[in-house]
Amino acid sequence: MKKILLIGATGAIGQAVAKNLGARHQLVTAGRSSGDHRVDLADDASVAALLEAVGKVDAIVCAAGNVHFGPLTEMTAEQFNIGLQDKLLGQVRLALLGQHVLNDGGSITLTTGVAADDPVRGGSNAAAVNAAVEGFVLGAAIELPRGLRINAVSPTLLTESSAAYGALFPGVETVPAARVALAYVRSVEGPLTGRVFRVWQ
Amino acid sequence: MKKILLIGATGAIGQAVAKNLGARHQLVTAGRSSGDHRVDLADDASVAALLEAVGKVDAIVCAAGNVHFGPLTEMTAEQFNIGLQDKLLGQVRLALLGQHVLNDGGSITLTTGVAADDPVRGGSNAAAVNAAVEGFVLGAAIELPRGLRINAVSPTLLTESSAAYGALFPGVETVPAARVALAYVRSVEGPLTGRVFRVWQ
Repeated sequence: MKKILLIGATGAIGQAVAKNLGARHQLVTAGRSSGDHRVDLADDASVAALLEAVGKVDAIVCAAGNVHFGPLTEMTAEQFNIGLQDKLLGQVRLALLGQHVLNDGGSITLTTGVAADDPVRGGSNAAAVNAAVEGFVLGAAIELPRGLRINAVSPTLLTESSAAYGALFPGVETVPAARVALAYVRSVEGPLTGRVFRVWQ
Repeated sequence: MKKILLIGATGAIGQAVAKNLGARHQLVTAGRSSGDHRVDLADDASVAALLEAVGKVDAIVCAAGNVHFGPLTEMTAEQFNIGLQDKLLGQVRLALLGQHVLNDGGSITLTTGVAADDPVRGGSNAAAVNAAVEGFVLGAAIELPRGLRINAVSPTLLTESSAAYGALFPGVETVPAARVALAYVRSVEGPLTGRVFRVWQ
């Protein structure tokens, strides 16, 4: 049984991850406005306070982060920076601070997305942010000490989200959140590091 | 003959690109501290002023941008943000503003690097930033109107830089800047878009 810190437990993915991992591990949840603890991933002090409150863990899983969606022809650098600061630097901040509270052999699992490989209209920020999270995971994996691991999960459109976002992904086969959750389990319980687990069709 | 705006013309890559493209095109150069114009890619107003001064162009080439190098175990989110704001958002800002001054069929060429695919020690920021630039290029290419194109060039370690940075890249075959410059020529003069031109060994 592992002690696992899960950020973003109330989203579609987070719920499925919590259901799967929670069945046999000790889960501590945190989020912007829900969970066992409040945390703002944009703030070093907030993340440090969360980690201090939770103590040593065996795994950190992040299923939180927003990007900016909108037409490239109208996009500003300020809008583009929203995704850089939120889904990218927020997750990186959690990993940079979180590495120090992981027990030996522990793991970090971040969330990216299919738009890094198959961009969607209005999704240039998402494409960059998701690709960056994947690049960070590759780069960080070769430096983590003490058997620590880091991976990313790249989901495609969730079946649960197809009503809301399906128009952005014409012809894309959706996957149920419960299947996406398996990739997080693979990252937390398996031996691999520096990987992007793509959960597509 | 095209009118080409080249940012970062004094670096090893920029010089080689200027030499090749300058032989048969009209080149306008800009940089932080040298070139025909001064520009700070971190500043919307500075980039807008440059583009206003230069007027319509057929191609924008960027060979400028810094990242943070340092051990992952000591890295802070603030340090990580250096590369996000400089090499990533700086180039994205240039592309977002620059798209509007390009003549029909024009192109944008950004610079990424081998560390996105083959990370180096201390290079987690570089890995993320380079991957993000590549993700942006993929995402932006599908939205650009009027036949506009966007590509990235990913150089490996330059022969000219091996004395300074060779220790970071054990066993990596270097390429001369003149060879890397060909990839920029391919992007500017060729038909492709949404591509990453990798110039490795």
